[in-house]
Amino acid sequence: MIPLEEARARILGALTPTPVETVPLSAGWGRVLARPVLARLTQPPADVSAMDGYAVCAADAGLGAKLTLIGAAPAGHPFPGTLGPGQAVRIFTGGFVPPGADGILLQEDATEADGLVEVREAVQPKRWIRRQGLDFAIGEVLIEAGRKLTARDVGLAAAANHPWLHVHRRPRIGILATGDEIALPGEPIPAGGIVSSNAHALAALVHAGGGEPVVLPIAPDDRDAIAAAAAAAQSCDMLVTTGGASVGEHDLVQKALGPEGFALDFWKIAMRPGKPLIWGRLGRTPVLGLPGNPVSALICAVQFLLPGLAVMQGLPGGAPPTVRLRTGAALPANDKRFDHLRSSLGTDASGQRIATPFAMQDSSMLKTLARAEALILRAPFAEAVAEGAEVEAILLADLGI
Amino acid sequence: MIPLEEARARILGALTPTPVETVPLSAGWGRVLARPVLARLTQPPADVSAMDGYAVCAADAGLGAKLTLIGAAPAGHPFPGTLGPGQAVRIFTGGFVPPGADGILLQEDATEADGLVEVREAVQPKRWIRRQGLDFAIGEVLIEAGRKLTARDVGLAAAANHPWLHVHRRPRIGILATGDEIALPGEPIPAGGIVSSNAHALAALVHAGGGEPVVLPIAPDDRDAIAAAAAAAQSCDMLVTTGGASVGEHDLVQKALGPEGFALDFWKIAMRPGKPLIWGRLGRTPVLGLPGNPVSALICAVQFLLPGLAVMQGLPGGAPPTVRLRTGAALPANDKRFDHLRSSLGTDASGQRIATPFAMQDSSMLKTLARAEALILRAPFAEAVAEGAEVEAILLADLGI
Repeated sequence: MIPLEEARARILGALTPTPVETVPLSAGWGRVLARPVLARLTQPPADVSAMDGYAVCAADAGLGAKLTLIGAAPAGHPFPGTLGPGQAVRIFTGGFVPPGADGILLQEDATEADGLVEVREAVQPKRWIRRQGLDFAIGEVLIEAGRKLTARDVGLAAAANHPWLHVHRRPRIGILATGDEIALPGEPIPAGGIVSSNAHALAALVHAGGGEPVVLPIAPDDRDAIAAAAAAAQSCDMLVTTGGASVGEHDLVQKALGPEGFALDFWKIAMRPGKPLIWGRLGRTPVLGLPGNPVSALICAVQFLLPGLAVMQGLPGGAPPTVRLRTGAALPANDKRFDHLRSSLGTDASGQRIATPFAMQDSSMLKTLARAEALILRAPFAEAVAEGAEVEAILLADLGI
Repeated sequence: MIPLEEARARILGALTPTPVETVPLSAGWGRVLARPVLARLTQPPADVSAMDGYAVCAADAGLGAKLTLIGAAPAGHPFPGTLGPGQAVRIFTGGFVPPGADGILLQEDATEADGLVEVREAVQPKRWIRRQGLDFAIGEVLIEAGRKLTARDVGLAAAANHPWLHVHRRPRIGILATGDEIALPGEPIPAGGIVSSNAHALAALVHAGGGEPVVLPIAPDDRDAIAAAAAAAQSCDMLVTTGGASVGEHDLVQKALGPEGFALDFWKIAMRPGKPLIWGRLGRTPVLGLPGNPVSALICAVQFLLPGLAVMQGLPGGAPPTVRLRTGAALPANDKRFDHLRSSLGTDASGQRIATPFAMQDSSMLKTLARAEALILRAPFAEAVAEGAEVEAILLADLGI
């Protein structure tokens, strides 16, 4: 058995970012930028008014002065002339400040009548003027490569005049559930069989992690079927299998894939749930073989597949984000396997966040996993802790899964 | 001016969840369930083994006993007979425990030779058997209506044999940017104009909030154009406009939409950035008029549109989630407007999370908004606080925007 962290490091070390593709700005949200976004223009393009009012020369606009109104500069319609002594131009937020003006008389500080504007509050030079380039200047790097684009980044790229963005292609993840005993939901269930939940749970997780899932037909426990499905996955950036990874079964998958060029890296990890795990490569396609047990498969996917998806998109890989919080129950000392206790979240009397492990942690209980809000992490050989002690946990909502 | 919380309450109070639609399980992730998911079968369907080993009768399986191997029960292939005295059936994880057996001899505790299985560790009755229905029983409510489906929920619904799910339709949000001075990225920019960033930033925010954005062509500041675009939005669940909401401009939008049946609710909110805001209804379509300023538009969208999208999907609405953390700079007393300070996140010497407001908070600075990680919230008339004081903040990553 190898430690969880070593397994993750070996998996992430073998993965590389997907190639670049060009997508419309409107498809940029959530994608990872492969080339930086540079400003293609200066924003604001000229000195503009920050308020509605009158563009004036501050030296002329003392209290009580009366200025001659010579025109208007709404946003998008610059005043075509130059402001002379004793003159004012009506201006609106975003309007270009005309040459000759150096201050803004706010409309609430002015009285306009008969073509004259009376100043009721003396104007400060430069006040209420947004200088050219206040937000950004042409050529400036606005968004660095490697950033996962937010809605705000999309707005910034738009403002910088980019109709297209260069991002890493979404990693295409082939998902292959194996097993004689499983059927897709709604299809006839074989005698003694169960409904397959892994493929679609993992597909949703791949969506959450920024990938594109490709759900392959279920493969019976048969070498040829597995090999055929694996071949179909050659067009994927990674093949994820479930089932066929236990003692005995493992041999089957390995033997089935061996003639196809499968190179096994390891298959036993010191973690619970989720001990049996295959990692290897089928030709150039990385293969992650998850346990058939749905809870084990999902928790292995949190520890290995989500970080892998990050790396394949050009993001930093690494352990899932964790928080420190208090345990709502005493925890016994742990054995040699890294443990993940499915837990609910709550708040104690003092307002501190607590995670309370469910009483039954059986790895077959999908309902318990679905209702869990946190996974309390227990390192190998962690000592027993009392109720209320601080522990480390993964918040499942933070992962979007 | 009305308070932010009152504005949000009035907006949310006027919205209702979208109708139900049926989607394939594979499209369920992130959708909000409109009808509960009930178990269509019992899981596990029978008593099954939790381990690889031998199904035995515990009374026969004392230390040193030798049992006759009569067959096998791998997952998906139940043993067709009944276990008699002194007999054992090879079993694998998930295999049905045959009638007559009541315990599992682990394979590492057994020696198999010549059709006999020698017991090297006495078997406890019921140990390593997952009883029928341990996970769930037929008819049980597994996922309540109103839940936003996680990857784990998708797996649970699959295991419960649901190929289809009934969810609230994604709210379709028409997005209409108005203004003479704006152009879409990559298109010719009018003299004195700027590139429009609002529509696509808001479209990304609508995606993040679970809605379906419909970006309408930019409407110049012209009554007929606005009215025509608004008519096109009649097929939307909400129309969001940007621009045309300032003093003066507001009249234009209201007058343009008035003949189309527009009923104005209010338009001035005690918040910064983002004071001018329209809320009303065009026929049966709610209309949210955001400021034209990109930073104001986004922050208003965080406070009003994201909670509105939640309500329209059947989720609870309400204020965006906030956290308590420390301010990295002293904050002056606030005036009458609810403020949102764009801030970066960091950690102080003691490991506490701190949010530090950017020095310039000008509402025109989209780059600053894009680089912000948190919005420190300052209630109206909040007192000045020292550096290091606890403040309330919205974490933008938590909103997916």
